[in-house]
Amino acid sequence: MPTFEMDGRHIYFESHGQGRPLVLLNGIMMSCVSWQPFIEALSANNRLLLVDFLDQGKSEKMVGQTYDHGIQVQVVRRLLEHLNLQSACVAGISYGSEVALEFAVTYPEMTDRLILLNATAATGWWLGDIGRAWNLASGSGEAYYHTAIPVIYSPDFYTKRHAWMENRKKLLIPLFENPDFIGAMRRLTDSSESYDLRDRLDQVRCPTLVVSCQEDYLTPLKEQEYLAAHIKDCHHVILPNCGHASMYEQPALFASLIAGFAGLPQVKFDI
Amino acid sequence: MPTFEMDGRHIYFESHGQGRPLVLLNGIMMSCVSWQPFIEALSANNRLLLVDFLDQGKSEKMVGQTYDHGIQVQVVRRLLEHLNLQSACVAGISYGSEVALEFAVTYPEMTDRLILLNATAATGWWLGDIGRAWNLASGSGEAYYHTAIPVIYSPDFYTKRHAWMENRKKLLIPLFENPDFIGAMRRLTDSSESYDLRDRLDQVRCPTLVVSCQEDYLTPLKEQEYLAAHIKDCHHVILPNCGHASMYEQPALFASLIAGFAGLPQVKFDI
Amino acid sequence: MPTFEMDGRHIYFESHGQGRPLVLLNGIMMSCVSWQPFIEALSANNRLLLVDFLDQGKSEKMVGQTYDHGIQVQVVRRLLEHLNLQSACVAGISYGSEVALEFAVTYPEMTDRLILLNATAATGWWLGDIGRAWNLASGSGEAYYHTAIPVIYSPDFYTKRHAWMENRKKLLIPLFENPDFIGAMRRLTDSSESYDLRDRLDQVRCPTLVVSCQEDYLTPLKEQEYLAAHIKDCHHVILPNCGHASMYEQPALFASLIAGFAGLPQVKFDI
Amino acid sequence: MPTFEMDGRHIYFESHGQGRPLVLLNGIMMSCVSWQPFIEALSANNRLLLVDFLDQGKSEKMVGQTYDHGIQVQVVRRLLEHLNLQSACVAGISYGSEVALEFAVTYPEMTDRLILLNATAATGWWLGDIGRAWNLASGSGEAYYHTAIPVIYSPDFYTKRHAWMENRKKLLIPLFENPDFIGAMRRLTDSSESYDLRDRLDQVRCPTLVVSCQEDYLTPLKEQEYLAAHIKDCHHVILPNCGHASMYEQPALFASLIAGFAGLPQVKFDI
Repeated sequence: MPTFEMDGRHIYFESHGQGRPLVLLNGIMMSCVSWQPFIEALSANNRLLLVDFLDQGKSEKMVGQTYDHGIQVQVVRRLLEHLNLQSACVAGISYGSEVALEFAVTYPEMTDRLILLNATAATGWWLGDIGRAWNLASGSGEAYYHTAIPVIYSPDFYTKRHAWMENRKKLLIPLFENPDFIGAMRRLTDSSESYDLRDRLDQVRCPTLVVSCQEDYLTPLKEQEYLAAHIKDCHHVILPNCGHASMYEQPALFASLIAGFAGLPQVKFDI
Repeated sequence: MPTFEMDGRHIYFESHGQGRPLVLLNGIMMSCVSWQPFIEALSANNRLLLVDFLDQGKSEKMVGQTYDHGIQVQVVRRLLEHLNLQSACVAGISYGSEVALEFAVTYPEMTDRLILLNATAATGWWLGDIGRAWNLASGSGEAYYHTAIPVIYSPDFYTKRHAWMENRKKLLIPLFENPDFIGAMRRLTDSSESYDLRDRLDQVRCPTLVVSCQEDYLTPLKEQEYLAAHIKDCHHVILPNCGHASMYEQPALFASLIAGFAGLPQVKFDI
Repeated sequence: MPTFEMDGRHIYFESHGQGRPLVLLNGIMMSCVSWQPFIEALSANNRLLLVDFLDQGKSEKMVGQTYDHGIQVQVVRRLLEHLNLQSACVAGISYGSEVALEFAVTYPEMTDRLILLNATAATGWWLGDIGRAWNLASGSGEAYYHTAIPVIYSPDFYTKRHAWMENRKKLLIPLFENPDFIGAMRRLTDSSESYDLRDRLDQVRCPTLVVSCQEDYLTPLKEQEYLAAHIKDCHHVILPNCGHASMYEQPALFASLIAGFAGLPQVKFDI
Repeated sequence: MPTFEMDGRHIYFESHGQGRPLVLLNGIMMSCVSWQPFIEALSANNRLLLVDFLDQGKSEKMVGQTYDHGIQVQVVRRLLEHLNLQSACVAGISYGSEVALEFAVTYPEMTDRLILLNATAATGWWLGDIGRAWNLASGSGEAYYHTAIPVIYSPDFYTKRHAWMENRKKLLIPLFENPDFIGAMRRLTDSSESYDLRDRLDQVRCPTLVVSCQEDYLTPLKEQEYLAAHIKDCHHVILPNCGHASMYEQPALFASLIAGFAGLPQVKFDI
């Protein structure tokens, strides 16, 4: 199992394929295994790097500790150092996009391209209170499911994929009853509370792709309009018929947008 | 206190001003008192009729009983009969818009104009599961607040009106701890579960105004696009910078849209 | 025929109904007669004032002269003075909305409400060059029609109302062959070239309604987003399925939006 | 100079790089040379094939002849045959996207991927009349420029790139005075008049990417919503801040969207 140590904690990662490195960072409930269907597509022309954040998947659990996104930024930096990579294209969805963005403003020289899906520049009052709802529901798997899951899908998808969602409900409710998992989820949720990069967006120095989803009700379109207005070399795309969990709702677009932008030559197309 | 009886249950209502009758129906957490700031504007050229649904405000509580929207449709019909009115303009927001729509398809001859704000044609899987989250959170005032309240506002409003929202939180959490109130909320929420008018929309026969809000994350824009596509004489307006609670976020537009459309002469402007 | 003199030029106007005065200003190709289908609705609760700008309808032609919007602003001021009115609600569409806005920033004390449909804050390079296309096509009625007319309608409307549009083509092409009419159109078009109120929007002091149309390809949505962002007490509404000629495409909404906002009581609904 | 013969007419084409073939089809005013800035990016992982349609660039002029899109579809088929290619990814912008779509419904077995930028399924009354405006303006370079050019850019781009646009105006007006060029433009414009694939969209059998631009005023968003609703395996992306000439306004996105989707592995990401 490929791992490295960071301050005595083990971090799990995966490397797939060859080429310019592309780090793809997990959303809050995800782990490396969630990317299984995307590995072939995203490693075709790039070296795809996946990593479990602290409190995710096979990486160390942080029981009893509090932390913020900064520690996950260090996970990404150490991953690149561990592999002797000077820089990479860094992509992420939701929680992972926030860490990706903080990595890019902290280590601009290590960031070749930045790809942000379902991202926000800050956890405001509104998103913070929604996070509190999740934590307050964490005593019951059923409550946690109903509080945290429907909102991350578009109504259309939730309806058309009802059988898939019902199956997912059966898988997730026991997971949400698991104190280890839900404890980690609470800490991860708490780690976003202080997140605020609004004043540092001008520190992004690489070409950036921001992907919005029209039915994203956790990080709505306006959040990405803010990013697009404040990041210098920013390219903005909107996916209709898609909620916050864009990787599930529009997997082909998810993969081709990342692959296309990660592979973009340094050529300046600007007229 | 103006009330009438319906099958032995008392219903509270209010009548303000003179003119063509305009019934304005409450959202699920509201009661007649919620409309206080709107009364002057909406009764200037119309007779404004407000009513508490069963399980709302000063109307009868339905402890131990289950029901669906149909019973609230009867509340509206009995209100008009009680006042010897043959028809009215019927407007509603959210829960109230659903009852308004069901009234219009059931009693088209009693509906002169229909105004639907933050409406949907049916409670689908997605909205149904969100309703379940509310009910599952009903054991704690704090959990209920965080589960049910942020989502009905746009992030911008929630942030800009933070002091107002914090004050509201202080008022609402004790209310959500009140077993009588929360029991009524649970029953009202359950009463929406079977709601589905998708096959009856062609029965609306009067000019209809559908108002969407771009940051409505409970009854998103697509729900109203469906209504506008299936109701015959339907006029559709979109409010930017507005969440589900449009009456709080855009009160001036809320009032002027209703007043303007309710007062629309029978003249056919159609070219 | 009701007229008044302004610097030796005659101005035609109409007054319909009683109540708080509501001035409705023409688009560039329009005249008082264009509002015929709206008079009953808009004079129901207001005194509706219509006026032909210089070079429009029955008002004086400006052959051989050049001017800008400022002279039309004076037309509106003189109209109110002629009728001994201290102030009015001022509404306008397109060219008329630009004059309405310039009136409101110039005479804020005379403007009770401002209603801007299909408006822009300035004639930029893009709109200016489109105006040049119109003028360059003015040698042929057929060329003028095809250059100036389709773009002001949404494709859907143009298709669904094909018979009406074809009939309109038959009426308009001879009009566009008329040297008097087309000469006035050229001067009116030229009068917009220098229009730019971007630095004066903070001088609007009254409640303002801005109406955008999603298929407006002459003054697109972003123009009104700019207005809404820079006018202090501004309320913004978007009409889907509607092009630049909103009065023809959505007449019922056109009338009810104006009537509703013009009649809005001074009450502050703000929470 | 690489050419092939088609029914006695010479067709100019270019081939760049190696890999799975990607045909990129010109908009109506373009030719192979227009793609110069994109060649490096789009030939990095694909064999990029460019071709001048009949009446474009270095291909045969069709003086005195009338034709429709069908003949250009044959140009594409013959190109693939000439190169002994059984199939290709076919991409196009505007006029080129229409030919690409007609190619895909006519030769589904030769189409691996379909990428449609700024596309429509049919030339309706509205777009047809706009084409007529172009042709009616073809007697004057200045009139043609002002009629046909501003509308294909977003107002923002036209303003921000004013120097570039003014330079372009200097280059284009003499070109539009050239009888050979303008004659070809008229024939190309006429060739679109009968275009209508609305009833054949179910014949597209390959994964399809449809790219809309929010400020596209020639083939507005609704046209692509129609395509997305009627093509089976269709993936839809919207570019904000972009007009009809997406290749000029958003070149980096233009290139990365095509490269990403053209390279998409056959893997079915569908959940």
